[in-house]
Amino acid sequence: MADVFDVIVMGAGPVGENVVDRAVRGGLSVAVIEAELAGGECSYWACVPSKALLRPVDLAGEVERAPGLTVEPIDVPAVLARRDWAVNDYSDSGQARWLESLPSTYIRGRARLAGERKVDVGGRVLTARHAVVVATGSLAAIPPIPGLAEAKPWTNREATGVKKVPGRLIVLGGGVVACEMSQALHALGATETTMVVRGHRLLERCDGFAATMVADALVARGIDIRFGTRIERVERTGGEVVAHLSDGTTLTADEILVAAGRTIGADIGLETVGLPDARPIEVDDSMRSVAHDWLYAVGDANGRALLTHMGKYQARLCGDVIAARANRRPDDLPSMRDQADRYGPPQVIFTDPQVAAVGLTEEAARERGLNVRSVEYDMSGITGAYLSAENYIGRAKAVVDEDRKVLLGVTFAGPAVADMLHSATIAITAEVPLDKLWHAVPSFPTVSEVWLRLLETYGL
Amino acid sequence: MADVFDVIVMGAGPVGENVVDRAVRGGLSVAVIEAELAGGECSYWACVPSKALLRPVDLAGEVERAPGLTVEPIDVPAVLARRDWAVNDYSDSGQARWLESLPSTYIRGRARLAGERKVDVGGRVLTARHAVVVATGSLAAIPPIPGLAEAKPWTNREATGVKKVPGRLIVLGGGVVACEMSQALHALGATETTMVVRGHRLLERCDGFAATMVADALVARGIDIRFGTRIERVERTGGEVVAHLSDGTTLTADEILVAAGRTIGADIGLETVGLPDARPIEVDDSMRSVAHDWLYAVGDANGRALLTHMGKYQARLCGDVIAARANRRPDDLPSMRDQADRYGPPQVIFTDPQVAAVGLTEEAARERGLNVRSVEYDMSGITGAYLSAENYIGRAKAVVDEDRKVLLGVTFAGPAVADMLHSATIAITAEVPLDKLWHAVPSFPTVSEVWLRLLETYGL
Repeated sequence: MADVFDVIVMGAGPVGENVVDRAVRGGLSVAVIEAELAGGECSYWACVPSKALLRPVDLAGEVERAPGLTVEPIDVPAVLARRDWAVNDYSDSGQARWLESLPSTYIRGRARLAGERKVDVGGRVLTARHAVVVATGSLAAIPPIPGLAEAKPWTNREATGVKKVPGRLIVLGGGVVACEMSQALHALGATETTMVVRGHRLLERCDGFAATMVADALVARGIDIRFGTRIERVERTGGEVVAHLSDGTTLTADEILVAAGRTIGADIGLETVGLPDARPIEVDDSMRSVAHDWLYAVGDANGRALLTHMGKYQARLCGDVIAARANRRPDDLPSMRDQADRYGPPQVIFTDPQVAAVGLTEEAARERGLNVRSVEYDMSGITGAYLSAENYIGRAKAVVDEDRKVLLGVTFAGPAVADMLHSATIAITAEVPLDKLWHAVPSFPTVSEVWLRLLETYGL
Repeated sequence: MADVFDVIVMGAGPVGENVVDRAVRGGLSVAVIEAELAGGECSYWACVPSKALLRPVDLAGEVERAPGLTVEPIDVPAVLARRDWAVNDYSDSGQARWLESLPSTYIRGRARLAGERKVDVGGRVLTARHAVVVATGSLAAIPPIPGLAEAKPWTNREATGVKKVPGRLIVLGGGVVACEMSQALHALGATETTMVVRGHRLLERCDGFAATMVADALVARGIDIRFGTRIERVERTGGEVVAHLSDGTTLTADEILVAAGRTIGADIGLETVGLPDARPIEVDDSMRSVAHDWLYAVGDANGRALLTHMGKYQARLCGDVIAARANRRPDDLPSMRDQADRYGPPQVIFTDPQVAAVGLTEEAARERGLNVRSVEYDMSGITGAYLSAENYIGRAKAVVDEDRKVLLGVTFAGPAVADMLHSATIAITAEVPLDKLWHAVPSFPTVSEVWLRLLETYGL
């Protein structure tokens, strides 16, 4: 019975890995199956390499704004070498060793569901005593634009893995990946970068003021943004890509990066258990499928929030809850239900300016029918901010639930605001009343003094 | 009756200014008296200029650790010019205009209490209908070391106001000012900087691990720290200062900076109302003197916490409470009592590494007889941290109240941790249970992921 495990986890990205870790800690035997690299999209082709590329760009921006300091042009080969270090040269040897050490059984191959509690890996069928967990993530979506697929477009994978920065780049999309990679590649040598954005703003899920700040900054750096424009047809001829736009113009570049959202991975055998293919698996707050009591889905696969940290969060509680149920222990501890997704997940966009947001935007809160009041504050008035940079540009917005006097959402946009976010995440998640937040005194002179100013603006 | 006001505020530092602002907003007539500059020690001779000097030093450190970037030597004149801009060339014209615009009456001169509800300014006696607020701050203490006063030592004022950086500098003390100004002046040209520290560690009020990290970093930069050593005698001969140390050696330098703590300003007429001179004024949680119901003291003058932001916090509630009492409105709203000081105030030390701490250290918590457990985490294991710098060094510690399962204290030490602090300040002030903090998910890949690791280390 070597192929029977308490738990089978499909996908060893950071999300799957966290399920494994917690389930093993709960005393269960676990097999985890990965078609590519343990560590997943995030570690090799998304968050990690993109931040390795963005960090020097971001820091160079900070220095440019600081009197008395001058930074030399970015050493691109050094940055790419650093990226290679960050992705461990695209080897998962360390991750594989860690999975084995837990201990768990790490199996390389493509996993497909094969009926109730069964998973096929290249013809070998594994059986789960307690649970199968789908943690197969998502793929870059390639829109059905004539000629696009044939033009060998870049996705986040080629962009984060860039070996030679193209001088001319077309970017299709206006979301997080589009903004981050446009900024990084432009700064690293793609001097002619054009973003083609279907809508009339960037970052559709962010508050509008933050999206405008990012757009202004990208344009100021020399990136061309074509709002309200679609790509109608693409051709690759020789070394060049030509994109025909809806406004009748054409763009010619060396590469085209498609950053038009994600799609749930297809062909994982969902049809063998009566579920639709290539669609998020609907789960309850314990991450258990609403269709089968042995099936769980975490991370992108359940469609709740396409963010590594939210997937890992779901994974921790999923691993714990599976172990509790297998061991017939209480499965309803406070840590065993998803609370965070309901507030609106935190997210940082690592452009310059950075955008850090958590909870609901004003618009989303009003759509939920909540009694909302918003306050905004120009962060350039904060001592800690204007001491950090000449011509500091930054802004914060808080969305208040007027009935309960708690925060529903907070957005910070400005240089280096990433680590300001967790203060808001705690305030929102713990539903700390404004009256109490008033007594949480920000240190002078930190940029966090914006908390005081927001509360004063509110009327405290 | 031009010299009768509802409220008289002695001292127009940031603390006094906040009392004025809130009292005027409450409908009261206010006079505020300042012997030096409106804006006070913080704005001209402490927090603000020191951070203007430290920012480029700090940022240069960040760049040194970032692969692909090279920063040129700091342009010292540009940094000093930036400092001059930050202190508005030591003019309080803007602050004075703001005070008048509230409106309040801004009086230049030295204020002395002159009996009940009376304040003397150079012979002119003002009378307060409702309250006199002492916001006179503190002064750099000069220890009674033979020859020291005669040697014209620098204090925080000369150090932050430096025009020509001395090549050789002796620093007496190991606290915040000593550490920050040693680092700044050393980086700006005081290549031979020696700190003479009576005790066997820096930063006595911080957790020991953070103090050790700062000491290691200062020594690695080339600063000489003489622990367990006292200065027994000082001479100034010609352009040189010679310090004779308790270990029998001598130090010769261009200047000596005394950073040996603060002392409450003397001679403000406390004897005219039966209070001891040069001692903190004991107040209740509404900032009212326990001796007189018309006398209030905020900021350094009450001795609760010698920190600008805590003084400003006290000032806001003090101004509100005076207005409420004068107008016979409820004076016990949640915003009208000091809650923050009881938790242990937040503070950031702007060295490289920065230290950001709030609440109680483990030691302080144990001294209070609390049932304490601490967890620590090496932040170099955080993805967001090691992506930000090569050879990242950082550490976090959380002190947990085991009876109530809430945080009592948090310390972060590492690069750019200043704005991570407010997350901990909110968690401690709102007494958020660990079970709830578990659902506040830090964004990946931010350094704030240390929150997750601390909670995991604790056992969640």
